[in-house]
Amino acid sequence: MPELRKDPITQEWVIIATERARRPSDFTHLTIAEPDKPEYSATCPFCPGKEGMTPSEVLAFRHGQDCNIADWWVRVVPNKFPALAIEGALNKRGNGMYDLMNGVGAHEVIIETPKHNLDPATFSLYQMSEVLWAYRERYLDLRKDSRFKYILIFRNHGKVAGASLEHPHSQLIATPMIPIDVVNELQGAERYFQYRDRCIWCDMIEQELEAQERIVKESEHFVAFEPFASKFPFETWLLPKTHQASFTDMTRERMMEFAGLMQDIFQRIAVCLNSPPYNFAIHTAPCGRENSDVFHWHMVVMPRLTIAAGFEMGTGIYINVTSPEAAAGYLRDASKSPDTESTDKVEVLA
Amino acid sequence: MPELRKDPITQEWVIIATERARRPSDFTHLTIAEPDKPEYSATCPFCPGKEGMTPSEVLAFRHGQDCNIADWWVRVVPNKFPALAIEGALNKRGNGMYDLMNGVGAHEVIIETPKHNLDPATFSLYQMSEVLWAYRERYLDLRKDSRFKYILIFRNHGKVAGASLEHPHSQLIATPMIPIDVVNELQGAERYFQYRDRCIWCDMIEQELEAQERIVKESEHFVAFEPFASKFPFETWLLPKTHQASFTDMTRERMMEFAGLMQDIFQRIAVCLNSPPYNFAIHTAPCGRENSDVFHWHMVVMPRLTIAAGFEMGTGIYINVTSPEAAAGYLRDASKSPDTESTDKVEVLA
Repeated sequence: MPELRKDPITQEWVIIATERARRPSDFTHLTIAEPDKPEYSATCPFCPGKEGMTPSEVLAFRHGQDCNIADWWVRVVPNKFPALAIEGALNKRGNGMYDLMNGVGAHEVIIETPKHNLDPATFSLYQMSEVLWAYRERYLDLRKDSRFKYILIFRNHGKVAGASLEHPHSQLIATPMIPIDVVNELQGAERYFQYRDRCIWCDMIEQELEAQERIVKESEHFVAFEPFASKFPFETWLLPKTHQASFTDMTRERMMEFAGLMQDIFQRIAVCLNSPPYNFAIHTAPCGRENSDVFHWHMVVMPRLTIAAGFEMGTGIYINVTSPEAAAGYLRDASKSPDTESTDKVEVLA
Repeated sequence: MPELRKDPITQEWVIIATERARRPSDFTHLTIAEPDKPEYSATCPFCPGKEGMTPSEVLAFRHGQDCNIADWWVRVVPNKFPALAIEGALNKRGNGMYDLMNGVGAHEVIIETPKHNLDPATFSLYQMSEVLWAYRERYLDLRKDSRFKYILIFRNHGKVAGASLEHPHSQLIATPMIPIDVVNELQGAERYFQYRDRCIWCDMIEQELEAQERIVKESEHFVAFEPFASKFPFETWLLPKTHQASFTDMTRERMMEFAGLMQDIFQRIAVCLNSPPYNFAIHTAPCGRENSDVFHWHMVVMPRLTIAAGFEMGTGIYINVTSPEAAAGYLRDASKSPDTESTDKVEVLA
């Protein structure tokens, strides 16, 4: 019998379709094998030495003082084809019954490493934590701009997940309003807080740690689990165990610990599902609510193993063909792949 | 400068990304060419003569009296791997902070024609209207079951749009609750109705017909346009011009007219975008609200030309790279393809 489960935050129902149950091997035909990539690609605009092919950088972690040259290990540039433009006023206006405004915002690309062929499962731990630190620096800079109400950091991995360039990169988009999905999450969390005076994610973590059914892995201060109402097979959440509204409040030390958990999870996903395409997004508190008692930041990882079709697009109800309990079991059993970058960037470049 | 447009019903923002503007020819590399299909496939469980390979039919339009034999022109069967099961009680229950219930509902497949190689752009007009009539009959039968609160009829066209079998078919899923997207649409329409005492879709149709910017085609009683806040390139809505809450209230005659407009639109999409994958869904009033003054039924056609990636999945804001005004222009200019089934089923089978 299939199960209908309700997301306790957004109150969205999902269908866990046990009749169609899928194991990891049922998905591997969907993971389009990408040929082995070289460490350097002469045609890639994000590889070192091609700094002139991108807009001028807004941040770089590098050895020297000069900008836009090839001695960086993380580099952030404005998107060459931005979805939202950094200049200009919103000019909110109507058109009959319709409402619109100028598409003002920020759209940046975080180039995660000079090496064309790595990804979060294969970075050195230090490199992963530097990428997270770059997210934090760009967030803190952009949140000073009062036009921006929300800043989303996300990653598209593989063509099927929407990546148009293969060089390892993530993206950041700052929007002039709080996006609808964040509003829904906030409203759900506020409803819960009003009644119980507790953060819904804190309660969820407590219940998950006690049940252990959907936990994939935990470290001292962080935990990764498959949510009860997972929309997608192998959807995974990573969260701090104690309340924290904004990911920018992590210290360097905590960020290193989180980087370690992230890598562990991406390695398990790569081993278990044959390096599938995926998206991840960091759900953090809206700008100005970084001290919220209600919102608890979390990273949502969404492997792209199935296709949202007419039913999902017509109802908002997702059909998930792998129960989160089964997915957690498969990911717990997946052993980590050993072939990460073996040395820390500090040593390489010393 | 990109534009942020607000859906007046759901209040969702979309980004019309003019910097990334795409014309129809920019998408044709995404439409995976499927080899010419035969009129009959020996391995297809939906082709005539294979009636024993499907669950027993719940409806068929056929010449004789016997069920599950090959003299049908439209046939409806339960889905062999249903997302929701027809038998059983909901058994609503809790699990700590979580809520769940049994996945009770209906999941049926409407086999649209005996011919393996046709689709809504190439059916005869009579065949198209018979498919719509089958939708109506199944809807009216299932709505008698008080466990069902909503019935969605949808179609997945092409693998990229989630179709797992290529024989022309649509699907119907009845759910034991009103889906979140329908709730949002209803609430938005009610907000508007409370203030203006008018149906929001009726007002929208009036404004669209006056502006003519986004109209693709109209017939005497129906109109097809690209919505102001289109989430997807070439998203197209088909609606009755005067208020009607449920598509089941169409008469035979009106259904024939609607079938004609549908075919015109699918032919334009096929010509303009090289037979792209698409989904469509019929948004009709929830069960029991078929006489609503607030809800206005409409068919939403969503060509699958771009990929929803980390930004869309993290925010609910869609980036649309073709403005609805441009899309409407391209579709208006696309001439209809002449190669539909030339004779009516009535004549063929007479």
